[in-house]
Amino acid sequence: MNIRMIRYIVGSVIQIEAVLLLLPALTALCYQESCLLIFVSIAIFCLVAGAMLKGKKPENTTIFSSEGYISVALCWIAMSICGALPLYFSGYFSNPIDALFEIVSGFTTTGATILNDVEILPRSILMWRSFSHWIGGMGVLVFVLAILPMAGASSMYLMKAESPGPSVGKLVPKVRSTAKILYAIYIVMTIIQMILLVLAGCPVFDSVNMAFATAGTGGFSVLNSGCADYNTATQIIITVFMILFGVNFNVYFLIYAGNIKEALKCEEARAYMGIIGASVLLIAVNTCSMFAHAGEAVLHAAFQVGSIITTTGFATVDFDLWPEFSKTILVCLMFVGACAGSTGGGIKVSRIVIMAKTILKELAFIVHPRNVRKTRFEGKQVEHEVLRSINVFLITYLAIFMGSILIISLDNFDGVTNFTAIAATFNNIGPGLAKVGPTCNFGAFSNLSKLVMIFDMLAGRLEIFPMLIVFSLFRNKKRWS
Amino acid sequence: MNIRMIRYIVGSVIQIEAVLLLLPALTALCYQESCLLIFVSIAIFCLVAGAMLKGKKPENTTIFSSEGYISVALCWIAMSICGALPLYFSGYFSNPIDALFEIVSGFTTTGATILNDVEILPRSILMWRSFSHWIGGMGVLVFVLAILPMAGASSMYLMKAESPGPSVGKLVPKVRSTAKILYAIYIVMTIIQMILLVLAGCPVFDSVNMAFATAGTGGFSVLNSGCADYNTATQIIITVFMILFGVNFNVYFLIYAGNIKEALKCEEARAYMGIIGASVLLIAVNTCSMFAHAGEAVLHAAFQVGSIITTTGFATVDFDLWPEFSKTILVCLMFVGACAGSTGGGIKVSRIVIMAKTILKELAFIVHPRNVRKTRFEGKQVEHEVLRSINVFLITYLAIFMGSILIISLDNFDGVTNFTAIAATFNNIGPGLAKVGPTCNFGAFSNLSKLVMIFDMLAGRLEIFPMLIVFSLFRNKKRWS
Repeated sequence: MNIRMIRYIVGSVIQIEAVLLLLPALTALCYQESCLLIFVSIAIFCLVAGAMLKGKKPENTTIFSSEGYISVALCWIAMSICGALPLYFSGYFSNPIDALFEIVSGFTTTGATILNDVEILPRSILMWRSFSHWIGGMGVLVFVLAILPMAGASSMYLMKAESPGPSVGKLVPKVRSTAKILYAIYIVMTIIQMILLVLAGCPVFDSVNMAFATAGTGGFSVLNSGCADYNTATQIIITVFMILFGVNFNVYFLIYAGNIKEALKCEEARAYMGIIGASVLLIAVNTCSMFAHAGEAVLHAAFQVGSIITTTGFATVDFDLWPEFSKTILVCLMFVGACAGSTGGGIKVSRIVIMAKTILKELAFIVHPRNVRKTRFEGKQVEHEVLRSINVFLITYLAIFMGSILIISLDNFDGVTNFTAIAATFNNIGPGLAKVGPTCNFGAFSNLSKLVMIFDMLAGRLEIFPMLIVFSLFRNKKRWS
Repeated sequence: MNIRMIRYIVGSVIQIEAVLLLLPALTALCYQESCLLIFVSIAIFCLVAGAMLKGKKPENTTIFSSEGYISVALCWIAMSICGALPLYFSGYFSNPIDALFEIVSGFTTTGATILNDVEILPRSILMWRSFSHWIGGMGVLVFVLAILPMAGASSMYLMKAESPGPSVGKLVPKVRSTAKILYAIYIVMTIIQMILLVLAGCPVFDSVNMAFATAGTGGFSVLNSGCADYNTATQIIITVFMILFGVNFNVYFLIYAGNIKEALKCEEARAYMGIIGASVLLIAVNTCSMFAHAGEAVLHAAFQVGSIITTTGFATVDFDLWPEFSKTILVCLMFVGACAGSTGGGIKVSRIVIMAKTILKELAFIVHPRNVRKTRFEGKQVEHEVLRSINVFLITYLAIFMGSILIISLDNFDGVTNFTAIAATFNNIGPGLAKVGPTCNFGAFSNLSKLVMIFDMLAGRLEIFPMLIVFSLFRNKKRWS
């Protein structure tokens, strides 16, 4: 195992984080907050720690699949620990696990908070929380790939391990160029949203934060009321951008490349839009009597559906008070998740579509055993390897899901709280129902439960296997060496 | 498609049901109940209807996979409709759907009732409910196979479609002999339990009913209190036999054949016992403070664990009042289910074990890509086809599960009620939690929800595909003809 290269990658990520910490430091400077000192000293600490870990650039930069998984998992763990330091030293979090929970919730774009009151936080801390969504949304390793030259297929292993979805497509032949294009699209879309929000009358500080949190499909808000107090125009802009950031970025690349016809043919994006449309319709009809007029019902339904399916987790209303049918739709959407290759979490629409096709194929196979056709997706035949990986993903997903619920049930909260708390953290959404509903928070859980959910958030963001590999590595140190 | 043969099989099953109806008729005669007339007239009706449907024995008795699935599904639907008639005409059920729900719950060995008070029912009706568990437990088609000679592999398709588990093993080369051996083991074990219950001081009528319900892993009781009012010896006997009827019947065949060493090696049965042991221990520790002494806690934990994992559904205590951790364990066990090739439902231990091995294999594969080993189960390599069928089963299972919860959520009950109601019916268990807990019933649901659960119970018992095929057949009448 190329341990030197793993150290080099992790060190680089910590150094990049040092640079990223300058944004909240700048915010602290602007608003003359005492946190400035904390952010600057931790940035320096990260710079030094990163350099020590990194050492000299190794001559052999080749890594393989397992090293890719391990690097990505270790990067995210290191990044989370360093990112939690400013939160902890700010004094607003009572213990290190709470601070870690909050920043993991940030980087993994979950948006579940353990805080009762976010409005007492200094603006620099708020900025760091929102910015962590933006960093985690596209993935910091993708950023590393954009700037760090690596040998041969090595970079592909890193990209595969960090990017969501059953199969990773390179937009252009070179991984490095792909990473650059992805970040360019990401940055441009974020800036457009910021400008639109300001034009809609949203305060500038809020606009920047909301754009970061929407782009990463995060969900941390700067107000205790979430998005309920913003005006209708702001809510509509956020709705639209939440849904846009849940689309497979390949679509934007195709549009950018002028291939609009091809972009419109994307099967996953069409299924995603279809699911959103059907859900909004059903919920609007179901909740119609709760609002003054039908338009309002549609608006709130669209916001909540967009927020949940993209795993953002903002809320304009307390959907825990909605009828059970609407709540059940939202819980289903929690699992569906956004498109692969977007910043959203969950199982991903592409996996759901391929699974649905598998069922139909099986039925046809039983009726006409001699007439077997292969499953097709996005115009291409689905490789056996992809099907296998989806199945393994699903099984592992369910096993971790069940195990997590079992452990947190030791806190003796009700079943809906436990189920939706894990659904909301493992799928990187944020709010669940009952005691973790949109007006509540995760502060009441025990430290053990918080650690389980920290693991789940990371496992959910990295699509399970990197985290499992690292844990099995700790367990069987000898076997894997 | 060999429609004449399908009609012949369905007709035969209805005629067999006519004979089976004589047991409740005899009970009515013994206890001088007015239901006697109802049972006798419906038995005659079944005899005539069966004969009309059957016609002459077709010359071509060959059927294929799809016809096997369709026959089995149609048999179960026809058997349920005929079986519901005595319940409906007895006047104790307010509408036909309630009567159908009750008998489907019986045949599928679910044991979920829509009745508030079962003690007001005539003994003949109680006997029919319990007997339906026994009939459905081993499967009426297996019975047909034991008496009806069929061409070549045709009988195997029927057996495959009705028997639970990822792969059906023939105990002896001939399907017909296998079916006979299975029924012989089943009858002997049921009679042993009846005798033991009577010896333990349980009333004779109760002993017969409880033995039928335990053998089929059903769950209908003749008392409103379930099994809470029976003495400790009776409860222990029921616990032991519930667990025994959840074991793969291959094990009993091996013991019967004198091959005890081989029987003890059965990987599925060992995993099943391991899961039971661990669950009993955890629950006993968790609920210890609720009972007078530790022994009582172990006893109740063992009864409830045995009842849920085998999908029987009896209860000696209201486990809805247990701490959340114990309840969560029980909910997990609802999905695990009993061994394949037993009378129990659920996903089946063999599928769970193979899935767990798949996860471990995947982890090993990522770490050592060049060192691929095949998954092994019961000492044999797991065929690709079995893995594929397990995956398709799991995906379809989850899709139906989600869809069902969504539809019944229209009744606006709470999430725990909806989730566990579907878990309890789809896995053929009986009681769930909250409004469908062990002291409650399914009467409050709307007719639409009851129809969904009737479908789920049948789909759960027949392992999904027969029911799906029949429904897709109704939808695409032309395409499949």
